[in-house]
Amino acid sequence: MRISQVGEFGLIQILKGILSSPVIGDDTAPVHLNDKTLLLTTDSMLEDRHFKRFYPPQAVGWKAISVNVSDVVASGGNPLWVLISLALPDLEVSYVESLYEGIKTACDFYNCHVVGGNLTKSDRIMIDVFMIGKAERFVSRSGAKPGDKLYVSGTLGDSKAGLELLLMERRQYEEFELKLIERHTRPTARIDYTRHISKYANACIDISDGLSSDVWHISRMSNVKININSKDIPISQELRLFCNKHGKDPLDYALSGGEDYQLLFTHPEDRYNPFLDMRSIGSVEEGYGVYLDGRELSPSGFDHFKLA
Amino acid sequence: MRISQVGEFGLIQILKGILSSPVIGDDTAPVHLNDKTLLLTTDSMLEDRHFKRFYPPQAVGWKAISVNVSDVVASGGNPLWVLISLALPDLEVSYVESLYEGIKTACDFYNCHVVGGNLTKSDRIMIDVFMIGKAERFVSRSGAKPGDKLYVSGTLGDSKAGLELLLMERRQYEEFELKLIERHTRPTARIDYTRHISKYANACIDISDGLSSDVWHISRMSNVKININSKDIPISQELRLFCNKHGKDPLDYALSGGEDYQLLFTHPEDRYNPFLDMRSIGSVEEGYGVYLDGRELSPSGFDHFKLA
Repeated sequence: MRISQVGEFGLIQILKGILSSPVIGDDTAPVHLNDKTLLLTTDSMLEDRHFKRFYPPQAVGWKAISVNVSDVVASGGNPLWVLISLALPDLEVSYVESLYEGIKTACDFYNCHVVGGNLTKSDRIMIDVFMIGKAERFVSRSGAKPGDKLYVSGTLGDSKAGLELLLMERRQYEEFELKLIERHTRPTARIDYTRHISKYANACIDISDGLSSDVWHISRMSNVKININSKDIPISQELRLFCNKHGKDPLDYALSGGEDYQLLFTHPEDRYNPFLDMRSIGSVEEGYGVYLDGRELSPSGFDHFKLA
Repeated sequence: MRISQVGEFGLIQILKGILSSPVIGDDTAPVHLNDKTLLLTTDSMLEDRHFKRFYPPQAVGWKAISVNVSDVVASGGNPLWVLISLALPDLEVSYVESLYEGIKTACDFYNCHVVGGNLTKSDRIMIDVFMIGKAERFVSRSGAKPGDKLYVSGTLGDSKAGLELLLMERRQYEEFELKLIERHTRPTARIDYTRHISKYANACIDISDGLSSDVWHISRMSNVKININSKDIPISQELRLFCNKHGKDPLDYALSGGEDYQLLFTHPEDRYNPFLDMRSIGSVEEGYGVYLDGRELSPSGFDHFKLA
């Protein structure tokens, strides 16, 4: 049997069995050292899979850090230390310098530090980032409670539209198009939510594979039923313009577009914070499954292996 | 200017400058959390660069963990937690299971735990291991003192001979040849030395690139002169047999053969421990450079980029 037959999530289940490890399967792995909770996570960016050589290397470096910070924030923490494992072809040194400038800018922004790493030669660029964060309280995917509301930060679907625009490789883009491209190439992890998530969220995940896929992780791991109202899903003005122009449905982008790196979380309604760009898009009940406007939602997000 | 022109170590210097990080350049990065010292390290195994697809996957998994433990031990610590970032083609699931069985066996042996990881699809197998260890005292490459003796654990050069034998892809191997192959494919990190290194070593490095290259790191970073006596360098019986058979000089293998994962360390002579397989191969003086039998030793180890 090949990996493509069991898929990414099937393979993870098999490997969990071999390791007999209960903790694997959250945004970060919490470990305890005396009275501290450290959050460990890793995420990689592979050339031709997550980015192209023609992307600005500063943006690639920024994103490599941001996607890891996003996992730390979703677990209720702040990033502390970073190791970078780079696999590189024989590139121009200036490319690697720009990549590292992006990494450094991101680390300064998120207030964490690259403390080490490793270099290997390879055919394609691969940036493996390992990050250690610290949390006052670890927030998992499995704590959603019946009665909670479901919230999302920011707007959804922008990154997918930005990717499609980028791959057109046009000479000229309109201003709203450049904003969408920027949301794909330079996403900002929602570190402004760490305090809110850490204090109030019962469950949280960052939206990396797409809302329709990631909401299932909360539903399954929390053993709850989740209802989503499509009219409440936040769509940006830029995505609306894009969809009008290309005859697309913004809801499709919001549901299945990955790499938005927004946060999806649940807590009681009275914890709503009007100073954050959070929006209630649904509710948590006893039961099983995810429903959109009353109909079961199929998890249509991205499986690296199954779609390959 | 391309990476091949500045080399691996040149590139590391450039990247250190961008990050303005003083700690990069040791076996592990020490970070402090309250009164604890954590050691962070990462090392990767890339198909066709560090191993071939025909190698037993259990051995590949074992080695991926061992090379990281070796760095932690060289810093005077014990491993605690592991994250694994896997980049995989669409392989047989059984291959990945065997790889993880090797990882699990190694983690059980070294008493550490895989707590998480990441999966990405790629053309070649890449195993990026991220390890966190703990040390009572961080031992760096930079603490060697004039008056110290230079010690090495185990025997040197076996791994390179094992690699050459393996690449012959013969049907039959003699028993001593199988032992050399085993030292290449399943090296054991010297975790039995953690206590000794942590208590007594002034400087330590694990021999991954080769003695002649790695000893220079201690010399440069400690600002000392190091003298090595070639007749004291420990050579295994198996390597002698191999060299006799193939008309090679075992000293060449011991000096420039990498991946032995033995420890090279310095401390005063009265800290010698006869219960360990340690051997004094030289001495530390005031001055600069590394000398073998009185002649300057050129750092002939492995540079991933310059040799490419």
